[in-house]
Amino acid sequence: MTPNPRPRLVVIGGGFAGLWAVRALAREAVDIVLIDRCNHHQFQPLLYQVATAGLSAPAIAAPLRHILRRQRNVTVLMGEVATIDRAAKVVRLADGSVERYDQLLLATGATHAYFGHDEWAEHAPGLKTLDDAMQIRARLLGAFERAERTDDPAERAACLTFAIVGAGPTGVELAGTLAEIARHTLRSEFRRIDPTQARVLLIEAGPRVLPAFEPYLSERAREQLVQLGVDVRLGAPVERIDSEGVVIGGQRIAARTVLWAAGVAASPLGAGLGVPLDRAGRVPVAPDLSVPGAPEIFVAGDLAAVIQDGQPVPGTAPAAKQMGRHVAANLRALWRGQATRPFRFQDVGALATIGRMAAVVRMGPLRLTGLPAWWLWLAAHVYFLIGFRNRLSVLLDWAWAYWTYARSSRIIFGPGGAGSEGR
Amino acid sequence: MTPNPRPRLVVIGGGFAGLWAVRALAREAVDIVLIDRCNHHQFQPLLYQVATAGLSAPAIAAPLRHILRRQRNVTVLMGEVATIDRAAKVVRLADGSVERYDQLLLATGATHAYFGHDEWAEHAPGLKTLDDAMQIRARLLGAFERAERTDDPAERAACLTFAIVGAGPTGVELAGTLAEIARHTLRSEFRRIDPTQARVLLIEAGPRVLPAFEPYLSERAREQLVQLGVDVRLGAPVERIDSEGVVIGGQRIAARTVLWAAGVAASPLGAGLGVPLDRAGRVPVAPDLSVPGAPEIFVAGDLAAVIQDGQPVPGTAPAAKQMGRHVAANLRALWRGQATRPFRFQDVGALATIGRMAAVVRMGPLRLTGLPAWWLWLAAHVYFLIGFRNRLSVLLDWAWAYWTYARSSRIIFGPGGAGSEGR
Repeated sequence: MTPNPRPRLVVIGGGFAGLWAVRALAREAVDIVLIDRCNHHQFQPLLYQVATAGLSAPAIAAPLRHILRRQRNVTVLMGEVATIDRAAKVVRLADGSVERYDQLLLATGATHAYFGHDEWAEHAPGLKTLDDAMQIRARLLGAFERAERTDDPAERAACLTFAIVGAGPTGVELAGTLAEIARHTLRSEFRRIDPTQARVLLIEAGPRVLPAFEPYLSERAREQLVQLGVDVRLGAPVERIDSEGVVIGGQRIAARTVLWAAGVAASPLGAGLGVPLDRAGRVPVAPDLSVPGAPEIFVAGDLAAVIQDGQPVPGTAPAAKQMGRHVAANLRALWRGQATRPFRFQDVGALATIGRMAAVVRMGPLRLTGLPAWWLWLAAHVYFLIGFRNRLSVLLDWAWAYWTYARSSRIIFGPGGAGSEGR
Repeated sequence: MTPNPRPRLVVIGGGFAGLWAVRALAREAVDIVLIDRCNHHQFQPLLYQVATAGLSAPAIAAPLRHILRRQRNVTVLMGEVATIDRAAKVVRLADGSVERYDQLLLATGATHAYFGHDEWAEHAPGLKTLDDAMQIRARLLGAFERAERTDDPAERAACLTFAIVGAGPTGVELAGTLAEIARHTLRSEFRRIDPTQARVLLIEAGPRVLPAFEPYLSERAREQLVQLGVDVRLGAPVERIDSEGVVIGGQRIAARTVLWAAGVAASPLGAGLGVPLDRAGRVPVAPDLSVPGAPEIFVAGDLAAVIQDGQPVPGTAPAAKQMGRHVAANLRALWRGQATRPFRFQDVGALATIGRMAAVVRMGPLRLTGLPAWWLWLAAHVYFLIGFRNRLSVLLDWAWAYWTYARSSRIIFGPGGAGSEGR
């Protein structure tokens, strides 16, 4: 038997890290197998727009095999990885099929974590996937529906109270957008309730919103949230979440809708590598992003714990793309018998949107808030999304929504939709 | 106590019949409550496009309360009707709330029926709601994914075999579109299978496809299906459907994906009226569309059994809209103390699409097939959909799909998506 001269690379995860690594290897003589649980790559930064009915799911997602249809060295498999067998160098899928690898890239990202309170999960869904977004959409819209239907004032008030736990970018986006929906989108559509009376609470254990920004930008963000009608509670760790609502500072807040944007934990697949993980379950990688003691295995994206200048590299899309491309470069080096290089994160800045015409931006020496920041945020996201989707219709949806406050995707699916629970 | 001078009308069902009745009463001094299980009205004629990933769900649906936001005499409730109490003149919802009525319009339509074989339902989903469309989409796309993953040739062949039961308009649309997806859309996107080898079977118990058209148009439709690559089996009643496929004529066909487009039955709410129903569960209405013996209750749309000139009025969108508007006119007459009038269906013709650039049309003395019929079908549907959605983006999606064969909504959701079953 002659060995296959083309190395075989298995990539698990088609998010920004995995997909960018695969694309960077388009011209290599290598057989790549890309495995993902979903059939699609999603544009994560706009997931909150799907959850809040501003965009349809297909507007921010595309099938991985469609994205990669012209890259003939890639086979895309939709499947669940059961185990990674480092000794045999194979990945086993849940349906029994087996993929052999010479090199492996693990880029399965992160999921939400409830700080040891897994019982909170059913009452407070988090937002990581399109399925999550659909569930949140059904709960948000379903709460207004239930409020319109009920005769009980206490129940009505609970239906019109929305608690968002965690004031990072996702929590801030959800709170700001939800306030906009209640105040504008739904304004004249109900007869028995006044949607503008809805309460939106943003609950944060730490001392400020958007802690990744400088304190004065956090303060500006808080002011913009308050202006949009959000009740921001800082220094308020959540003590309990149940079907009735949340408890903070010993005080119970009756809320039929609680959303979780507080904690993330790395994907459980990292544990399958058999190396020590950090507290959040991430894999502390070597400087070249390989797994210590396993030079044929790389980790990129949110699953990788990278410390740079004493700071962790953030779990953002730009960081994931940079890691993915860097792993591709190191794989090329490996295949050519050259030395791999250490990864260095280039921080291009940070953008966070708060709501209609409100955002904060840190970009090099530049700091923006309010309308200019929002325009920059919009331009950046349209640029990246259009590059990815190549479709004008998303832009049209947005332009339409901007002028009319309408949200084009207010369709409730599935069990969250109908039924007496209304959730 | 003085009686409320404004009559109270409860409408159950926000499809074409219910919504058109409500809209025709916009200027009346009446309190209308419109109850639907879903929060949206859907443009039923294009549901197959959502199921086959050509359009996103929000493209063909809009929230009922958004459609009716300016009609101040309507309250929209999303909820499940549990019972109709004719003696007390109230409608009870599943969550316990109660709506009193002076007049009632029942327009809850039809659902799919399995001719007494309810055990077929889990293996062969039908297409009536957006949730159905999402499930079918996940199965269709999931079957190709599973074929790519498996090493077993028999399993692969079963994954690439699609059986559609019933050659009415929905079955024909699904078969034609599925053939197009296999031959064009997915053509270059797989590495281990050749999607163009997929078999699409259209199975019909009767002697011809599209029996609502003249025999020679049915024959032209069959020819067009064959040209698109569909294996049309006429005079072939289905004997069995299970997880392995279908049995026709004693022959087992291994098919991982079976879709049901054969039978419909009226919504079960008709039985709650306590009047005799026809064999399909429809309500045989009086000539004015009221329920015999209950002049305050009307039935419209697919739930109403109307015989005209010895023929049943078809269960189509134009018929439902005409009935809805007619009930509105008769309600106005009632409220003014005038006599109600008998309903008469105006047959404007019929259109059925078969696939890319293939359709059949019957319109007055006009008969079209092939490309001219397809253009007329497209124009009619764009006209009605745009009137309903008022959005250019659907048109853009279509134009894009036409030139590229791309389908913009190939996103698999939920449990049908991942997992070892791949269905």
